[in-house]
Amino acid sequence: MRGVGRLCVMSQPPGPLSQLRRGHEELVLGLLRKHGPLSRGELGKRCGLSRTTLYDILADLVAAGAVVTATQQEAPRGRGRPAETLTLNPDAGQAIGIDFTRRGLHVAAVNLAHEIVGSASEPHAADLPWEGRVELAERLIGSLTGTGSGALRLGALSAIGVGVVGPVEGPEQPEDDEDPPPHPVQLLLHERFGVPVLLDNNTRLAALGEAIWGAAAGGQDVLYLRLSHGVGGGLVVGGSLHRGAYGLSGEFGHITVEPGGARCGCGGTGCLETVASIRAVLDAYRAAGGRADDVPELIKAVQSGDETALWLLDGVGARIGEVLAALCNAIGPSVIVIGGELAATGAPLLDPVERALAEHVMPVSRHRVRLRRATLGEAAGALGGIALVLHESPLLARYPAGPDLAEDPILNQTRTP
Amino acid sequence: MRGVGRLCVMSQPPGPLSQLRRGHEELVLGLLRKHGPLSRGELGKRCGLSRTTLYDILADLVAAGAVVTATQQEAPRGRGRPAETLTLNPDAGQAIGIDFTRRGLHVAAVNLAHEIVGSASEPHAADLPWEGRVELAERLIGSLTGTGSGALRLGALSAIGVGVVGPVEGPEQPEDDEDPPPHPVQLLLHERFGVPVLLDNNTRLAALGEAIWGAAAGGQDVLYLRLSHGVGGGLVVGGSLHRGAYGLSGEFGHITVEPGGARCGCGGTGCLETVASIRAVLDAYRAAGGRADDVPELIKAVQSGDETALWLLDGVGARIGEVLAALCNAIGPSVIVIGGELAATGAPLLDPVERALAEHVMPVSRHRVRLRRATLGEAAGALGGIALVLHESPLLARYPAGPDLAEDPILNQTRTP
Repeated sequence: MRGVGRLCVMSQPPGPLSQLRRGHEELVLGLLRKHGPLSRGELGKRCGLSRTTLYDILADLVAAGAVVTATQQEAPRGRGRPAETLTLNPDAGQAIGIDFTRRGLHVAAVNLAHEIVGSASEPHAADLPWEGRVELAERLIGSLTGTGSGALRLGALSAIGVGVVGPVEGPEQPEDDEDPPPHPVQLLLHERFGVPVLLDNNTRLAALGEAIWGAAAGGQDVLYLRLSHGVGGGLVVGGSLHRGAYGLSGEFGHITVEPGGARCGCGGTGCLETVASIRAVLDAYRAAGGRADDVPELIKAVQSGDETALWLLDGVGARIGEVLAALCNAIGPSVIVIGGELAATGAPLLDPVERALAEHVMPVSRHRVRLRRATLGEAAGALGGIALVLHESPLLARYPAGPDLAEDPILNQTRTP
Repeated sequence: MRGVGRLCVMSQPPGPLSQLRRGHEELVLGLLRKHGPLSRGELGKRCGLSRTTLYDILADLVAAGAVVTATQQEAPRGRGRPAETLTLNPDAGQAIGIDFTRRGLHVAAVNLAHEIVGSASEPHAADLPWEGRVELAERLIGSLTGTGSGALRLGALSAIGVGVVGPVEGPEQPEDDEDPPPHPVQLLLHERFGVPVLLDNNTRLAALGEAIWGAAAGGQDVLYLRLSHGVGGGLVVGGSLHRGAYGLSGEFGHITVEPGGARCGCGGTGCLETVASIRAVLDAYRAAGGRADDVPELIKAVQSGDETALWLLDGVGARIGEVLAALCNAIGPSVIVIGGELAATGAPLLDPVERALAEHVMPVSRHRVRLRRATLGEAAGALGGIALVLHESPLLARYPAGPDLAEDPILNQTRTP
């Protein structure tokens, strides 16, 4: 997993040989995960691999630090040499997720047991160059290390999963040998940490985070919609993050809802984003005579029963629900998760979403899809970065569907110096 | 693969042990496919499995008829006993696909080399019971057998893939142990042929067929829209058929395009199907003063330059294009395939689809997604049934992305007695 050669931008379907080898590695790691310490002989009996192949695989896993050897204290009776056992390295397999948003970054880390070791956030100017952002990331990561036995040890770091704003392309076809060129942040992070750096769009990663640890934990087919400064989202399809043929998927904010409507940043007109983004909602509220400079003020107005705010959110929610109904008919998710700052307006927005969804989805699907508010907050993207690493790395794969982290005390303990 | 116990309704994620075993089987079959005949020793060196495991796997594959043994004519010099080699059974691995539509059925068959051995179609009354349909299927399959060396031999049949009208549910979660109860047609076909019978929605299967052999051959992310008596479709995501969390996906015909519009058979109103189905288009044409009782007559009117027909298709195409644009933004397919009888109206319908798609899709995606007319015709569903079998069966897996069968003479040689 180490070295620039393995620094990959996106999941690459490996050749048959490396696929075979990775399958063997997963097999051995899976047995150690399940049974705990095993001798080479016991492993051999269980895995069905030849002695040569098994020893070869084990040598690599030990060299990579994924597996450690231990000598059994009590030698079996009647034998001279104590048996050596192999076990997963408890210090290995730590992974970091970093969400590089436009104006800040979020960091989270897990250990091999996939326990959250810590998380941290810090805002920055929108024009901060990548070098500065990576320095900041390094500082935040440093703040998670070195305190107590569960703390992050960078020596045990296996990989970093990174979310960035905007489209992230994969190869057009799985047969394509050419990786897309690495993103600057991948090169910078690889230079500092010397581990593979996986990268994807941060909103898509938030979808993956919610599907693994958040509001849709364990869901195999999940639609995530984020209502923030932009409107976007992501799809988890059959348990995996769906990227689309050219890295553009989950662009729910650019679905036309008002033909000939307001101009959108994407170049189109009447996109959902022109109706349901933070700015669109605040502008419409002020145009209708309301007073709010930001989402918290809008929420205060809503909570005080301001009729204009409630009427406005009712209309926005209906539009969102119509789009979600169309997508449900096409994709058939079991759970829809709504996140982003505007989701915090709660029922006055989400109830009309649910009503419009029920009205426009095929009647036969009406009681099958569940609508939920996101639970991971601003850590969703960073946790999705970790999930990306867990998906891609044979050393870390087979993460559990995981506990619901909504109540995780570490997650909610973000730092903003 | 044989026996009612393996008669499965949908793909079931197998337990770790059978998954491991299937992985070993695939490994061995893959080596024989790649290298041709190999001795047990050569296979052992290449696959990395222990002798015991390999011999065990081979015994099963030979018993299942997937692998045959042959004795090399020329013994290696200086050795007494000629080496026995193993090779894929050229007679094994034939698969049949059957598309049970409302008023007729289509049958296609392939051999292990994935060459189309034959195809046939026959209409029937809509109220023909399953027993009658299966009898008819058996007769059509019989008509494909027994002529020439490439003909279908039922003794070599590995599995049947079946398409039916309506939703086909899978397990809610991959951990669910319970298979849904088999469809009556699965029981009837299994009784007659004694092989596993896989089943899915026939429009979804047509999507898979087009993505593997048709207009989108080799495409990993494909959206298929069928404009027929109903309007539906299917999604191929990352090279696999997407089913959705509760077996309802690809229901593009029930996306609302006219809020408060005409009542739809699904129970909703203003669905795309109320605008773009055969009946909706013919009704609208006649309401506007045109004369056509069926699609061929409508096509004649279009070809003669009838202004009403052209104006009508222009409007219908625009509606379709808007829906496709929304889905492109969400899903990001590389190819959109349009099939069904109405697609045969050609440019007067497809040009406005393309214009509306370009207008409403995110500008950044505009030149990336390609719109194509389906090429497999009414055989698409049956071929998709075969593709389903090839996907699910370890004995048949790793089918090639395949040649474009649009020009295949056998495919176009359908029988209608």
